[in-house]
Amino acid sequence: MKNFVFHNPTKILFGKDTIPSIGSETAAFGKKALIVYGQGSIRNNGIYEQVTKSLNDVGVTLIEHGGVQSNPVLSHVHKGIALARENRVEVIVAVGGGSVIDSAKAIAAGAPVEHDVWKFFIGKKSIKNALPLTCVLTLAASGSEMNSGMVVTNEATKQKFGFANKHLYPRVSILDPTATFSVSPEYTAYGAVDAIAHILEYYFTNQEPYTPVQDHFMEGLVISCMDSCNRVLKNLEDYDARADLMWGATLALNGLTAAGLGKAGFPMHMIEHSISALYNVAHGAGLSVVIPGWMLYQSERTPKIFAQFGERVFGITSGSLKEKAAAGIQALLAWFAKVKTPTSLSDLHISGEDIPLIAENAVALAKIWGMKDYTEEKIAEILKLCV
Amino acid sequence: MKNFVFHNPTKILFGKDTIPSIGSETAAFGKKALIVYGQGSIRNNGIYEQVTKSLNDVGVTLIEHGGVQSNPVLSHVHKGIALARENRVEVIVAVGGGSVIDSAKAIAAGAPVEHDVWKFFIGKKSIKNALPLTCVLTLAASGSEMNSGMVVTNEATKQKFGFANKHLYPRVSILDPTATFSVSPEYTAYGAVDAIAHILEYYFTNQEPYTPVQDHFMEGLVISCMDSCNRVLKNLEDYDARADLMWGATLALNGLTAAGLGKAGFPMHMIEHSISALYNVAHGAGLSVVIPGWMLYQSERTPKIFAQFGERVFGITSGSLKEKAAAGIQALLAWFAKVKTPTSLSDLHISGEDIPLIAENAVALAKIWGMKDYTEEKIAEILKLCV
Repeated sequence: MKNFVFHNPTKILFGKDTIPSIGSETAAFGKKALIVYGQGSIRNNGIYEQVTKSLNDVGVTLIEHGGVQSNPVLSHVHKGIALARENRVEVIVAVGGGSVIDSAKAIAAGAPVEHDVWKFFIGKKSIKNALPLTCVLTLAASGSEMNSGMVVTNEATKQKFGFANKHLYPRVSILDPTATFSVSPEYTAYGAVDAIAHILEYYFTNQEPYTPVQDHFMEGLVISCMDSCNRVLKNLEDYDARADLMWGATLALNGLTAAGLGKAGFPMHMIEHSISALYNVAHGAGLSVVIPGWMLYQSERTPKIFAQFGERVFGITSGSLKEKAAAGIQALLAWFAKVKTPTSLSDLHISGEDIPLIAENAVALAKIWGMKDYTEEKIAEILKLCV
Repeated sequence: MKNFVFHNPTKILFGKDTIPSIGSETAAFGKKALIVYGQGSIRNNGIYEQVTKSLNDVGVTLIEHGGVQSNPVLSHVHKGIALARENRVEVIVAVGGGSVIDSAKAIAAGAPVEHDVWKFFIGKKSIKNALPLTCVLTLAASGSEMNSGMVVTNEATKQKFGFANKHLYPRVSILDPTATFSVSPEYTAYGAVDAIAHILEYYFTNQEPYTPVQDHFMEGLVISCMDSCNRVLKNLEDYDARADLMWGATLALNGLTAAGLGKAGFPMHMIEHSISALYNVAHGAGLSVVIPGWMLYQSERTPKIFAQFGERVFGITSGSLKEKAAAGIQALLAWFAKVKTPTSLSDLHISGEDIPLIAENAVALAKIWGMKDYTEEKIAEILKLCV
């Protein structure tokens, strides 16, 4: 096992009827809040009213900053930072999924500094502090509610970049599974794929030869995420299934799966970020296309861990290492098909001719993330397996 | 899934050469520290020197409080509280295993209050604050390094009581697997049994019908703890095996396995505490005797979860529910035999005639822990299965 530091200070309130706690939890950090949310679905399912009532009841003044889009953009973050500064906001409240929480993190980090927040993303500045952040989660997917990462797209440069910093952990996140009842089957599946991708990034790029604690944890999470997604798709208001998916997605990227594995690249995300940045496809949909291609490429090189995946997650017990690895990938692909997520670039209406363009975009992020072995050629080769 | 709050603020520094960080990590909380440790083994393996040098180097003044025994006693805690007060100590440093850390927690909670610290244990007072605590762990077992629980024995009343409070989380815990190289095979196995017991308490007393996220996590942890213990017993200085066991034992009781399961009793610990309190046997040894007896008793009543355990942990696929459950219990017993932990009261030189005495002692804790269904008769019945 590699050395690690694990320190995740986020307080999770999980379950039914927890949303009305957002007021008292937020008021502990300040009485003037910027409330960040998305395209308004929270106005339709009653969550907006629950949140604002709870905040108003404890005397927290709200500055509105709705309109975050999926694949959240820098220009909207800039507006949020300006609002936070003008109004001397003391705390940020994010109500939404990963895009909203990530935007809120960028605002929380950008508000206290004079320079452009984008400098954090390109490694030109480092975060020294941030406004406190509380969250009400409405989508099981990104894990942002309990981690220190954020991803934002710079529309001007067509760069979807992300990174992590300890000042970005939400102070409190409220996870009420009923808040995800209105998520469509399509986006439920994208969310499950996103969570699974987070697990697989660590699972397959783990450089340590034998990590039973982490491996069993990750295998169990993949099984749970698939299983709970299947159950949700049968009944969108199955509370326990929504709860299992929500908590599974949170655990998939809260630092625990990674602890002890050393530096792991995030190659599938790196490539997907370019697809999202260039074509604005949903993150989970992009991942669902990249995952099988990347797995095919990588399993040729390190078949053992892929065979273990096939064996322990899908019960594939016969065949050579490579055969088990291949069968595991096919089983995951079959599950993607079952939950109806796209599995090829053509499913996303992206032409194979665009591969060089995507690879060129992706390699910029590979450099920033320190993944030197991911050249344009290698990325293009992987993308060819996604056709 | 049941509603829950998860908030574990302990910072973990894990790995080789992490002990010299204890100075800077501790100095953040104060410059005058009470250093709590056990019977002196840390003076033999160099850890005492590493810790005190690191603390001295950053100008932390140390007040000595060694001599904690396994099954730590209240009288020694009282002495620590007196020392902490006299010297106006600002921070507690625990260097040891669960007994040392639990004693340090009791001192940290007791030093700021006028009344006897035991009042916290019997539910007469509640903890409002505590001195900050940093730890250097030397035994993979209790999980105390990353949780809010503590267990202390009141010698006068022969009560081994424990409870949890959010102010008791260590601020920082340093987990260097090499610090456990000198732990004997016997105590290594006791530690693994303790960790497994923590997992099984939640696993088997879970009232929820279906909790895939938690179940898979716990099954993986049991497998990892057994596997890493086996490897350690082959080579006491196998770093990765020591690391897997250490991290597995920490995860076994840091709140994650429990989150979402609702209120779970701790019946095996409840009974074992009486055995330890009355006969001063090692906690892991006592558990190793109680676990199979309790499992036999309980599996007759709720066989399904025991069958799942047999299936997923030991690969038992054939037979009825009760047969799989029984085979799982036998497989765990066989593992206890393999790692040479006791499996009957007679192995601990306790006569079956003492059962009423143990049951009478245990029922007092059952009442405090709110386990109303554990009557003296029921506890005695379980203990008869431990003969």
